[in-house]
Amino acid sequence: MVKKDIGGEALKLHKKLGGKIGIISAMKVASREELSLIYTPGVAAVSLLLHKHPNLARDYTIKGKMVAVISDGSAVLGLGNIGPYGALPVMEGKCALFKTFADVDAFPIVLDTQDPDEIIETVARLAPVFGGINLEDIAAPKCFYIEEELKKRLDIPVMHDDQHGTAVVILAALINAAKVVKKDFKKLKVVVSGAGAAGTASVKLLLKAGIKDIIILDRKGIINSARQEPHKKELARKTNPRKVKGALPEALRGADVLLGVSGPGLATAADIRLMAPRGIVFAMANPTPEITPEEAKKGGAAVVGTGRSDYPNQINNSLVFPGIFRGALDHKVRQITDEMKIKAAKNLAALVKKPTALRVVPGPFENGVARAVAKAIR
Amino acid sequence: MVKKDIGGEALKLHKKLGGKIGIISAMKVASREELSLIYTPGVAAVSLLLHKHPNLARDYTIKGKMVAVISDGSAVLGLGNIGPYGALPVMEGKCALFKTFADVDAFPIVLDTQDPDEIIETVARLAPVFGGINLEDIAAPKCFYIEEELKKRLDIPVMHDDQHGTAVVILAALINAAKVVKKDFKKLKVVVSGAGAAGTASVKLLLKAGIKDIIILDRKGIINSARQEPHKKELARKTNPRKVKGALPEALRGADVLLGVSGPGLATAADIRLMAPRGIVFAMANPTPEITPEEAKKGGAAVVGTGRSDYPNQINNSLVFPGIFRGALDHKVRQITDEMKIKAAKNLAALVKKPTALRVVPGPFENGVARAVAKAIR
Repeated sequence: MVKKDIGGEALKLHKKLGGKIGIISAMKVASREELSLIYTPGVAAVSLLLHKHPNLARDYTIKGKMVAVISDGSAVLGLGNIGPYGALPVMEGKCALFKTFADVDAFPIVLDTQDPDEIIETVARLAPVFGGINLEDIAAPKCFYIEEELKKRLDIPVMHDDQHGTAVVILAALINAAKVVKKDFKKLKVVVSGAGAAGTASVKLLLKAGIKDIIILDRKGIINSARQEPHKKELARKTNPRKVKGALPEALRGADVLLGVSGPGLATAADIRLMAPRGIVFAMANPTPEITPEEAKKGGAAVVGTGRSDYPNQINNSLVFPGIFRGALDHKVRQITDEMKIKAAKNLAALVKKPTALRVVPGPFENGVARAVAKAIR
Repeated sequence: MVKKDIGGEALKLHKKLGGKIGIISAMKVASREELSLIYTPGVAAVSLLLHKHPNLARDYTIKGKMVAVISDGSAVLGLGNIGPYGALPVMEGKCALFKTFADVDAFPIVLDTQDPDEIIETVARLAPVFGGINLEDIAAPKCFYIEEELKKRLDIPVMHDDQHGTAVVILAALINAAKVVKKDFKKLKVVVSGAGAAGTASVKLLLKAGIKDIIILDRKGIINSARQEPHKKELARKTNPRKVKGALPEALRGADVLLGVSGPGLATAADIRLMAPRGIVFAMANPTPEITPEEAKKGGAAVVGTGRSDYPNQINNSLVFPGIFRGALDHKVRQITDEMKIKAAKNLAALVKKPTALRVVPGPFENGVARAVAKAIR
């Protein structure tokens, strides 16, 4: 019932706003003199300079401050493939958050194509305008290929936020949760449910951060070396050192952490009881988590987080993406590296002075969140 | 000397501004409740609605108010092919003017391709975000093909401003200039120098507006039926009813109007003396006109206009494009027709209550300019 009201209210608000972002002129243009400086004839001097020295575009144009938020609408929120028009309100919302949380100017681009190579071509052709590319809500596995190719081709940072924003906030939350349950972070046994964009990137970042024992599952169960898809083959190589076979219950036996990045109805209290004492459960499917916090606690979990704002520990990438691009723009960064992401997660975690079971990450409106993340991106 | 100072000042100003437009959030997002309406979970209701009914995107997203200003940098101002980075400051300036003059939200896109079909593909893929497409500074003749194809493919208005913005302001100025010299508008003998984007579109619009006798010239002289290029063949069919042969002097003999949309050094006072009494000369090359106003008057011209702000009668498309798209957005127009353009020119001309030799068009900062033009686009 609550959900339905939020939807109705959101519809009304969107119709009233008619677009959640707007354009402003950076300067009042009120005289012929001002006109002659920002437009002809004065602008010609800037044009000629940038024609000769395109690398100066960041200093003289919006390229220095503008991020593109780009989606093909193939995997929007938990709604699936709803195309460019379905994606547009989400991308606009994201741009509003970029501005709100980190004073980053961001513009939404939704594409009338879902072909990976066409997406790559199109983004590459637009890139001159932007200082960074935030890919968003693009389905796995093509999202991996698209991001990789664009990173190779462009000299501006390209980040698929569903992957890396999520991975960074999970890492931050896990650093603090380990402290709360008094376990050694690097020795955590982690189970990840979901091998899409978020699951795959989280596994890779947790490995980089020093965790050794990760089991990842998709719909078919624990991912092992028998898998054929390239990105699952790669995951199989890097995970499951104890060669555990089976499905979720087998994976959970003795585990310290369950990360849900798949969908509702994953686990029950009985599953959680299979975990080691003082377990950590992050159930991040939106709006319905993989297991409710109530049920997870019934199973004995000591720290529980979700993606929702109406429970404690909202583990949401809105804590991360504004600061990442703020830092990337400020420091003219060309690639966002794993080292930067790990540093960003540590900075974010450090904002919570005394982590507790009810507070492993700061709230989105707390001061200094974006700044702490931005400091890591240089 | 003056020019050099403007360039230097413009460079300083651009560096200080770091981008002439910016993004704002249409709503302050300061609480979890507001966050849940503009982003997840509330936004899902809007996404699902637009997935089902894409035609509602204009009511619920920035599509209802946002224009793309798109260039490949192949013909920027009088500077030629200076590529996307050279074009970006001009497109940004145009977006600032859209906002200043008509409260239109416009975003600049400069493309890292100059291939006509790639440009068409790219623009078509971006179109879901926008309520209108302003093509800009794309070289002739490919600009004709690109505009035509996009008009066929898209359900939003597409306008190449170098063509149609210029044609509309020329028509407006000519309506008033004819009154000043007390000649019948439809009987004017018109000579157009330049068969690029502006010249071609101006000829077509003047014909539509009722003028019968137009001669158009390019570098090779008067365009006649011997020409091979498709768009020049078409011009030859529609113009030169008296079958005049030769170059500018032959064309000017007895003419009432000279429109210069080519480049500096076109004509001297001696050429103007070949025209009929009470001649009209619009020399619109920027920043150096085809003939200086002083020289044109020496040759006997009664009304002289240029594209410059430091002479009377600045005939510049900034009088037109903001209002055109303001009207197109307000009335959800899908195509900008010749009838709308002619009406827009008449509305613009009518703003000058008593046209004189020194005032055939209003100034860009006069009240009501964009509104008068916008009223015609419905």
